[in-house]
Amino acid sequence: MRATLTIDLEAIAANWRALDAMTDCETGAVVKANAYGLGVAHVAPALWEAGARTFFVALAEEGVELRRVLGPEARIFVFSGHMLGDRVMISTCDLIPLLNSLDQIARFRERLPGRKYGLQLDTGMNRLGLEIAELAEAGELKPELVISHLACADDPEHPQNAAQLAAFDVAKQFNARRSLAATGGVLLGNQYHLDITRPGIGLYGGLPFADAQPVVTLSLPVIQEREVAIGESVGYGATWVAERPSFIATVSAGYADGLIRAMGNKAMLYAGDVACPVVGRVSMDLITVDVTDLRETPDELDILNAYQTVDTLAEAAGTIGYEILTSLGARYERRYIGG
Amino acid sequence: MRATLTIDLEAIAANWRALDAMTDCETGAVVKANAYGLGVAHVAPALWEAGARTFFVALAEEGVELRRVLGPEARIFVFSGHMLGDRVMISTCDLIPLLNSLDQIARFRERLPGRKYGLQLDTGMNRLGLEIAELAEAGELKPELVISHLACADDPEHPQNAAQLAAFDVAKQFNARRSLAATGGVLLGNQYHLDITRPGIGLYGGLPFADAQPVVTLSLPVIQEREVAIGESVGYGATWVAERPSFIATVSAGYADGLIRAMGNKAMLYAGDVACPVVGRVSMDLITVDVTDLRETPDELDILNAYQTVDTLAEAAGTIGYEILTSLGARYERRYIGG
Repeated sequence: MRATLTIDLEAIAANWRALDAMTDCETGAVVKANAYGLGVAHVAPALWEAGARTFFVALAEEGVELRRVLGPEARIFVFSGHMLGDRVMISTCDLIPLLNSLDQIARFRERLPGRKYGLQLDTGMNRLGLEIAELAEAGELKPELVISHLACADDPEHPQNAAQLAAFDVAKQFNARRSLAATGGVLLGNQYHLDITRPGIGLYGGLPFADAQPVVTLSLPVIQEREVAIGESVGYGATWVAERPSFIATVSAGYADGLIRAMGNKAMLYAGDVACPVVGRVSMDLITVDVTDLRETPDELDILNAYQTVDTLAEAAGTIGYEILTSLGARYERRYIGG
Repeated sequence: MRATLTIDLEAIAANWRALDAMTDCETGAVVKANAYGLGVAHVAPALWEAGARTFFVALAEEGVELRRVLGPEARIFVFSGHMLGDRVMISTCDLIPLLNSLDQIARFRERLPGRKYGLQLDTGMNRLGLEIAELAEAGELKPELVISHLACADDPEHPQNAAQLAAFDVAKQFNARRSLAATGGVLLGNQYHLDITRPGIGLYGGLPFADAQPVVTLSLPVIQEREVAIGESVGYGATWVAERPSFIATVSAGYADGLIRAMGNKAMLYAGDVACPVVGRVSMDLITVDVTDLRETPDELDILNAYQTVDTLAEAAGTIGYEILTSLGARYERRYIGG
């Protein structure tokens, strides 16, 4: 028996509509990394149904899959642009690469002349995108869309937001639509919205979109329960020692299922709304939990629910909700609500 | 273009043979969690070819897949035993559950009477397995195999090893084969080997088997390279600031590919044998790296190779090699050597 990951497609659609209602421009949808781990074959059609028509992926390979899922009408942009080996995928699946360097522009002009493309400018994150100083060397450009990406959008007070917005003014020279805002940028306000926004994490219920509806529930089956006497240890390295007579349940999931080992003893498993602390080390396929305070141990305990969201669990693991989502493993039975 | 994960099946076979040569008993193979993330459909046949005949998985669902891969002759044991819903999988795929509680023994007797089973005893890890005190209540048992699992086998000096070995003497009451040693237990020496060993991590090139042949190479394609002036920042949160005129390469892989975000700035990317430090935060699909000291930036940089093994990278990420392996993502192009 496997653990069950329940993904609420109606909540994803509601989150898209909520982010769409915050702007007067088009709202796209970022579905890279298999829709942040939640399954692009289910998530993308739900977003299409909600009204999204423009989608963003990281790799051409993801665009191929997305085209198969959504059919010919969706606009599909590829963040990594036109990398070596992408030519056939781009042309046969009608993908629009967001070219991000002089090398890529040259490659595209040589191998896919006349096709549609977009442009990614770097406005200060120094990660991906053509440098503004390089524009002079790029020759005449007629992109469909010009984008850039904010490095500090989850911190509204960070001065780099305004600096990047100002730097992005350079994109006005093109007769093209412009996009700067992912989820964090949507929340920064009107001047960041421009022609199209690109929410990702907010669709999937994560911060910085604090009002997002939770999307995932993850229930782990209890394999067995045992009594542990004072002084007995539990798990690898014998790191946890019982300080009272305890009942320990062992559930069937572990870090091989993306339940990050670093969450260690800071995460909880839930029986309904009652929190039970993880004890001992997270194993590859197993987690041990102190259920002493439960009257009865249920057949399953939840590790993601309305009480412990991807962001709460991320805090326990010392990371961010994005990584909790994209780490969710392949062994779960996946159930989709709605869609 | 995707990153390339190369998996050396000949090295896995060599590691199995090396661990087999350390004992006078049978050597099994643990292929749970999709063969520690490396692909059970390729790994299990390579192990069979090397001589393994007895395999261990965590879940009945994994046993179903393994039976399909290996055919009818392999012996397949399931660590999680007989969980609710497992009956049909166990019987149609001829899996041998390692029963680990009185509940499971009762369930098995009721639903699969007369079939083969094994027994998992808890000898002090308090994670999975029947308590020794419960044996008296279990009725007559005729297991094929009795196993237990060491909590501290990677620390040869830990007193719990000898204590668990002594406690496992209780298994002698059964007319059955006995197994206590995973990779760490093999290295602890002869008295831990008993009738069959169950190496996992050592097959895949990880500690505590220090002499293991490395199994995985992971090469990440460079998307672009840029000059960064003194004082400019790189990546999310603008956490890294150039202290010299620098060249920064951006590679196409990130934490959505299992390159754990916590490795932050402690990991290296390799151009051949030259180490280039990761700078700034690891993104979902991208990593930035300081290539200033390279004469020329190659098309790909390696993050796992002979210089930075799964264990070195684990240290950078504050975890263990096991988690590096099982996190390896679905977006890689996987190439298999040998097999």
